[in-house]
Parts: sequence; C-alpha cells; structure tokens
Amino acid sequence: MVSNMKPKLEDVAKLAGVSKTTASRVLNNRGYLSEKTLKKVHDAMETLNYQPNAAARQLFKQETGLIGLIFPTVSNPFFGELVNYLEYELYQRDFKVIIGNSLQDTDKETDYLNQLLAGQVDGLIVGTHNQGIAEYKYSHLPIVAIDRIMNSDIPIVESDNYHGGVLATERLINAGVKHIVHTNGPSSLETPAHRRRVAYETIMKNNGLEPHTFTIDFKLSFAEKKRRYQQLFDSYPDMEALFVSNDVDASIIMAIAKERGRKIPEDLLIVGYDGTELMRNVMPQLTTVVQPIEEMAKIAVDILLKRIAGDKTESEYILPVTLWEGTTGHR
Amino acid sequence: MVSNMKPKLEDVAKLAGVSKTTASRVLNNRGYLSEKTLKKVHDAMETLNYQPNAAARQLFKQETGLIGLIFPTVSNPFFGELVNYLEYELYQRDFKVIIGNSLQDTDKETDYLNQLLAGQVDGLIVGTHNQGIAEYKYSHLPIVAIDRIMNSDIPIVESDNYHGGVLATERLINAGVKHIVHTNGPSSLETPAHRRRVAYETIMKNNGLEPHTFTIDFKLSFAEKKRRYQQLFDSYPDMEALFVSNDVDASIIMAIAKERGRKIPEDLLIVGYDGTELMRNVMPQLTTVVQPIEEMAKIAVDILLKRIAGDKTESEYILPVTLWEGTTGHR
Repeated sequence: MVSNMKPKLEDVAKLAGVSKTTASRVLNNRGYLSEKTLKKVHDAMETLNYQPNAAARQLFKQETGLIGLIFPTVSNPFFGELVNYLEYELYQRDFKVIIGNSLQDTDKETDYLNQLLAGQVDGLIVGTHNQGIAEYKYSHLPIVAIDRIMNSDIPIVESDNYHGGVLATERLINAGVKHIVHTNGPSSLETPAHRRRVAYETIMKNNGLEPHTFTIDFKLSFAEKKRRYQQLFDSYPDMEALFVSNDVDASIIMAIAKERGRKIPEDLLIVGYDGTELMRNVMPQLTTVVQPIEEMAKIAVDILLKRIAGDKTESEYILPVTLWEGTTGHR
Repeated sequence: MVSNMKPKLEDVAKLAGVSKTTASRVLNNRGYLSEKTLKKVHDAMETLNYQPNAAARQLFKQETGLIGLIFPTVSNPFFGELVNYLEYELYQRDFKVIIGNSLQDTDKETDYLNQLLAGQVDGLIVGTHNQGIAEYKYSHLPIVAIDRIMNSDIPIVESDNYHGGVLATERLINAGVKHIVHTNGPSSLETPAHRRRVAYETIMKNNGLEPHTFTIDFKLSFAEKKRRYQQLFDSYPDMEALFVSNDVDASIIMAIAKERGRKIPEDLLIVGYDGTELMRNVMPQLTTVVQPIEEMAKIAVDILLKRIAGDKTESEYILPVTLWEGTTGHR
C-alpha cells in the first residue's frame, strides 16, 4: 500500500479504512469526528509520512482564534513572565490563549496536542520539561518550542545558553575562585539549557579547573529542593562558588548558605540564571544571566504565525543573553 | 413598553426590535449573531432587568468547556500561583482555561466579557485591578470575583483582609515600634484589600498611635514604584516600621532601605502581605501575612460551577489568613 511516490490523501484514507471525504475532514478539521477516527487517520498520515499541501494547511488558519501554551507552571517567574508576554503578543494579533500548566500532570501535554489535532486550537507554543511525546512526529503541525528540543521539523526559540554558561563561569573564575560547582537538570531532558553545563565544563577545563555538576530535577517541590541543596553543601564542603541554573534555586541556596553561616560574597559566590524582571527587583544583589524573555516571546509568536500560514521557518532562533552584575558574583 | 410585571423574553425582543427567535438565540448562544444584535438584545435585557429562568441558564452549561481567567498579570507571584491553582482545579473538572492579563490593557476585560456573552466561554473568574465595568450588571452571568467587589449579585472569594491587617499591625506594635507606615492601593479601586488599611488604621488608633497610609498604584512599573518608595523614605524620615500591602513591594522597599543604610530589623521593621510559596522560599526572612491561595482557587471554582449550573451561592466567601514569622517583623 505504501508506494514510492509522494503519498496522496486517498492513500491515507485507504490505509485508515475510511472514505476520502472523512480523511479530508480530518485534515481540514471540519465537522464532528470521533477520537478513534482522528487517531486512525493521523496514524495513517504518520505511517505514510503524508504532508498536506500549503492550500490544505491554509484551512487551519485562524479557525478558532485560540493558541495553546504549555509550560510547567506560571507560578515560576520565568514561565510567568514568558506566558505574560506571549499572551500580550498573541492578543495584539487577535488570538486568545489557552494555558496548560504541565508540571503536575504530564498527560496534559498529550491532551493539548490532541486538541490541536482536533482543530480546537490553531497552534501550540510548548516549553515543558516533560519527556518527548510520540505525537510530535506530526511535523506539519503549527508548533513552536521554547528552550526545548523536539524534532528537527519543529522550530526552537532559545536564548544563547552556551554564551550564558560562559559569562557565568568566567565571572566566577575572574573573581579568583577555583572550586566552582554548577547545578543543572538531568541530562535526559532534551533542553538547550544543557549547553550551559557544556559551556561551564569547557571553560573550567580550559582554565585547568575541575568541573563539578550537581544534577537536580526542576520538578521537585521547594521542600525537596531544599533537602537536595543541603546535600550539595555536605558533598562540597570546600566549594567557593556556585553557578546555579535558575534564580529561584539560587535564592534557596542563598538562604541555606545563611543558615550555615556562609557569608555571600565573602565566603561564597553565587551566579544565577534567567534574570526575570521580578527577581532583578526582588533580589537585585543576585548576579545572574539575563534571558531576553520579551524578545523570545515576540519571536515565538512570529514563527508560530508563519507556521500557521504554511510559510517556511528556520529550525533554531538563538537570542543574546547579558550579565546582570549584582553583588553575589564577585568580592 | 416596560410593564410592572416580571419581564418576558418577548418584551426583550420587542424593545430590542428583533424577533423572539433572535432574542432566544442571543439568550442561548445559538447560531451566528452580529455584535450589533447581541448588544441590542443585551441592552434590552438590562433595561428591563430581564432574568432568564434556570432552564434557560442550563443551556450555558459546559457548551465550550472553556473558562476565562482575567487577572492583572501572571508575572506577579500572587496571580501566577492563583492562576496555576485555578487552572489545575478546572482541568480536574474537564475545563480548559483562557487567560487574559489585563494589566497592560484595560479594554481586555470588556473583550472577555463579550466572549462570555457570545457563548465562547462558559464562565469567568475575574480579579483585576481595573475599574468597574458597566456590563457586569448582567448579574445572571456565571462570573466569580476574587478579591474584588463587583456588584451584589456576583460572588466574591477573598481572604480575611481585615484580620490580615490586624495581624500585621499588632505584630509591629508588639515589637515596640510606634511610627508605623502602611502602603496600599488607591481607594478608588473597589477591592476588599482596603480592609487591610481599615484594620491598620483602627488598630493604630486603638493603641493611641497615628496611622500614616501611603497610597501607591499596583499597576506602576518597577522603576516607577522604586521612585515612589524613595519618596516614601523622604516623607517619613522617622519611620520605624512598614506594613506593606504585598511582598514584591516589600522586597523593593528592603532593597531601598539597604541602599540608604537602614538595617532590617535593627533600624527598620517590615511586614509584607500575600505569602506566596515563591516569596516564602526566595525571601524566607520576610515576615508576611499568608493568603490561602490554593483554597481560594478551589472555592472559586466550586462557586463558578454552581453558578454555571444555575444553583444559588453565597455573596461572599472569606478564608482565614496566617502570619509567616520571618526575621523582619521583630527584633
């Protein structure tokens, strides 16, 4: 049934065991369709690697006026500010946003993806810390990822994580310390944030220093994170500095350091990551790498609208980072 | 045309100059209706104070599976955590959420209300700092307010703002200080948060102390807030303590105090408000009044679902607050 020629809609219909009309309705999100029919047709599209043409894709265009945003939780300042800017940008272009906080419920991502497949939203912007989901193989869908590697067909918007890692590590080395520990998420998560670790380890080695990366899952509760960071202090009693992969965790570490009588910056240097507007105002003393959250949101929206229109996009958009000089990164 | 009897749908239709079928379609959100027709019929419903019966209201029930949440901005930790919990609770009950951040755009609230009127969402949970909107006079609509006074027909969920004001003010008075300044939003905003001010002023007077309330708009940018809080320090050079109406502003004030060489708690005491999980972990030293955000979200969702089902609800739900004892509220 699978020919060497470019597959046609009738091939999809035949493989799915439905009429061509039904297959067309699935493709164009028209009329009522059962979950089962949707799945059969999408499975057949996947098996045959069927790519609808631009005209067919145009039919997706602004059907619902809704865009789904799937991020771990808006209660984290980085995602809160990102979602705030995404909502603002999309509203300017007559889209409303549906949000799904996926931190407490990893199935939610599949659920929203099915919504997209069923034509209940026009596009998705995703940035979760969940593991890869098989359905993202439908590469023709209007999806944009922020700070997350999906597959080669889904464009990623990210800040320059490698350069951020370089800025943070060099800041600490230039302050004269040698025993620098880095915290980052488990490497099983496919996120460009791991380039921060690669940069840290490379710069440390280039300076004849031994890298020490402490792995911690972003999803842990505050109480669990505190317990893990107490272990970090126990594991590295001689540590002189920390490059922490996000500012909220950097604050938790600063509170633990205080409890343990480690003075910052006298006895311990800290550089964080993210540099949200909130954290720069609430903890201006924290030296941190600033991600351009507003620009990341603008570009993600631009690219998503291009995808919805069926236009070509790049596969990766990397935006520059800067260093916020507080008082915790040097003496 | 306006009779003394309970108005019927045909009275609405007559006044609006449309057929009874059209008026019914407006009421039940069926079929395509122009903005103009919607407005004419809703205006007539308002003029006649027309109340649809429970059966008509049942038709609103879970039409779209979407609930609109309108809050100033999810980039503020209080609203970020609130929206996170609301989304979690609603998702458990098969609703998805549309969010509108209204801080940068006060018209957005009217837009979302029109969505509700047009049947594109099943209900709204609102908690904005915007001024009252005329459309909320449609008191039969499934709307719940959080920390905001709308009209007597729309239920409010709030924490015990008066008791919170008492806890904060008594904490400071018991610490032995006399010159205590309170910050709060402009009294033109109709929010129960003003009860914090009433409690502060009452407790101060009961203790023979002079209250000083410093008014500041929540909507200001961080830069503008900093400028205003510098003015606060200039206006009250002898101030010994501050009861600040939210924790983010308390942090800004703490940073300014540091710049000015005022040591906390030695030279200046601070008690904040909100007590989000984020702020309690990022700034555990800040003594603050903790609002039960998760419980507020749960109750708001319960009440909204009752409103959607046409069941009766109370007009006000007040939840208890607690004091988080950091190190900034006493010596």
